[in-house]
Amino acid sequence: MSRINHQIHLASRPQGEPTAENFKLVEAAVPALTEGQVLVRNHYLSLDPYMRGRMNDGKSYAQPQPLGEVMLGGTVGEVVESLNANFKPGDKVVGMGGWQEYQLVDASQRGVLQKVDTSHIPLSAYLGAVGMPGVTAWYGLVKIINPKPGETVVVSAASGAVGGAVGQLAKVRGARAVGIAGGADKCRYVVEELGFDACIDYKAHQDVKSLSAALKAACPNGIDGYFENVGGMILDAVLLRANAFSRVAMCGMISGYNGEPIPMSAPQLILVNRMKIEGFIVSEHMEVWPEALKELGTLVATGKLKYRESVAEGIASAPEAFLGLLKGKNFGKQIVKLI
Amino acid sequence: MSRINHQIHLASRPQGEPTAENFKLVEAAVPALTEGQVLVRNHYLSLDPYMRGRMNDGKSYAQPQPLGEVMLGGTVGEVVESLNANFKPGDKVVGMGGWQEYQLVDASQRGVLQKVDTSHIPLSAYLGAVGMPGVTAWYGLVKIINPKPGETVVVSAASGAVGGAVGQLAKVRGARAVGIAGGADKCRYVVEELGFDACIDYKAHQDVKSLSAALKAACPNGIDGYFENVGGMILDAVLLRANAFSRVAMCGMISGYNGEPIPMSAPQLILVNRMKIEGFIVSEHMEVWPEALKELGTLVATGKLKYRESVAEGIASAPEAFLGLLKGKNFGKQIVKLI
Repeated sequence: MSRINHQIHLASRPQGEPTAENFKLVEAAVPALTEGQVLVRNHYLSLDPYMRGRMNDGKSYAQPQPLGEVMLGGTVGEVVESLNANFKPGDKVVGMGGWQEYQLVDASQRGVLQKVDTSHIPLSAYLGAVGMPGVTAWYGLVKIINPKPGETVVVSAASGAVGGAVGQLAKVRGARAVGIAGGADKCRYVVEELGFDACIDYKAHQDVKSLSAALKAACPNGIDGYFENVGGMILDAVLLRANAFSRVAMCGMISGYNGEPIPMSAPQLILVNRMKIEGFIVSEHMEVWPEALKELGTLVATGKLKYRESVAEGIASAPEAFLGLLKGKNFGKQIVKLI
Repeated sequence: MSRINHQIHLASRPQGEPTAENFKLVEAAVPALTEGQVLVRNHYLSLDPYMRGRMNDGKSYAQPQPLGEVMLGGTVGEVVESLNANFKPGDKVVGMGGWQEYQLVDASQRGVLQKVDTSHIPLSAYLGAVGMPGVTAWYGLVKIINPKPGETVVVSAASGAVGGAVGQLAKVRGARAVGIAGGADKCRYVVEELGFDACIDYKAHQDVKSLSAALKAACPNGIDGYFENVGGMILDAVLLRANAFSRVAMCGMISGYNGEPIPMSAPQLILVNRMKIEGFIVSEHMEVWPEALKELGTLVATGKLKYRESVAEGIASAPEAFLGLLKGKNFGKQIVKLI
């Protein structure tokens, strides 16, 4: 039986803002399995801001996404065929299956496929709160910001998969959590659903001064830790409210992903406040994943770590959903349901 | 016998660039000693860039220098009278004597005066290579940059008291040391006298692109550590050559001391290169001073840590010498000889 696999390829590199034309829907046959291989039916595809960086050809921390090949991406799914003793049909697995319906992998390579337990945790959560975004939040918060009880932690893109987890993990540690998000709906969700102490709608602030004043009101004791997902004006405003010995975990700067200049206006504040700023990529810190996933999994299973998903339907919808994610149109973790 | 003490007071706060009018020479009588006090004849006064920050009234890491009082500053000198059992006339001491000829202190307060050994180390060195500037270099290099053998360390203001020590300490650790300094004379000194591998004359480069190209030539394997004394264009150029996992010790940003904007053009490079940037003030890390001073003292006593001094004569010359220091007119550690 030959299966048809629908895939999204990178057709061309974006000039500035990416468009639907940069992607191409392709139909391919799934080849027969050879020894050691596993065929996975992908149930959900994860869409994440880091993919925007991979679409460029320039110097970055990762190899560019090759043109004319399946877009890279995290997936969860179910084993449908196996010629590997460690996997059998019906196993639920997480992996880097890419923007496609089927994934054929040599599962003897360590770490390529991980079996997951869905008895207390929904399958899709392994792409979010109990997956790469959750561990990203955990690493930046625990290993860089390391908040003490009573300190104030601010996170941008607070309603997203990473930002939402950052604030909730900060609350678990006894810190004050303040989010920054775009729009009243997202801010209400961040406070009422996720339990942050406050959330600032950056769209209601046109300049650094106004945003900085809002931060002062929301952070009466200043800012001890900042988890950066956005950059630009938001970073400038946060630096104006940073306390002595504050820490910035630099995870993403989505405001500059299309090549816009995003200067830091006053880097001398790093010195004045004896700050530490650290950039990181979670895939380079695999040693923390077991500890992080254990805490994240327990918190999700017990309902203490909440999240929201934006679900697009079908592989063909992935490009539009991804372009929307880059503009903040998603509300919660953006995934694509493939089955 | 009543002694006359000549002092320099801060007369007014600078608007932008400081001038001689911000200072005032004052003549005062030295009062009689009371129990526990020590009178020190200051031999040398240290002039340092951090003093510029203290002249402002704004928020910074230290209290502003009060108006109408003796300018703060490090001094070395000799005890001339003592009503304290721990000090006797003839003792050589280092302390924060200020911009004045005599210092009357309650020496029972711990750490206010430290006796120093001048048998192998010149007295003035305790204001430079074996003093606050040396420990500043040591802390940033050892505790933040922590270079591995073969890595490349860049330091700005490389012919100065701090910068010169940074490069030589990096060489001791097997790293490549590259300086940035202003003018061919300073660069020649940094390479030929201090033993750096290379030195770039920033005055020969009008823009970031040109300076960055010079850094590429001097650092063929990229930059792993940067010790920041200047800021502005130099920081931008260094970031363009920074390696993955590179570290920046942020010690000073003299290019912005008069309020000029000194934005960091591309903070996204912190993320792209997973960099760590840390601001520090050496007086907040007293725990490292014994270890640092031991290494620095041994290196100076054995001729392995070289330095140069710019010596102004007499307390009245201190303001002009300080203004020159801010413009890079000094060549090596700026001190004032008071006796």
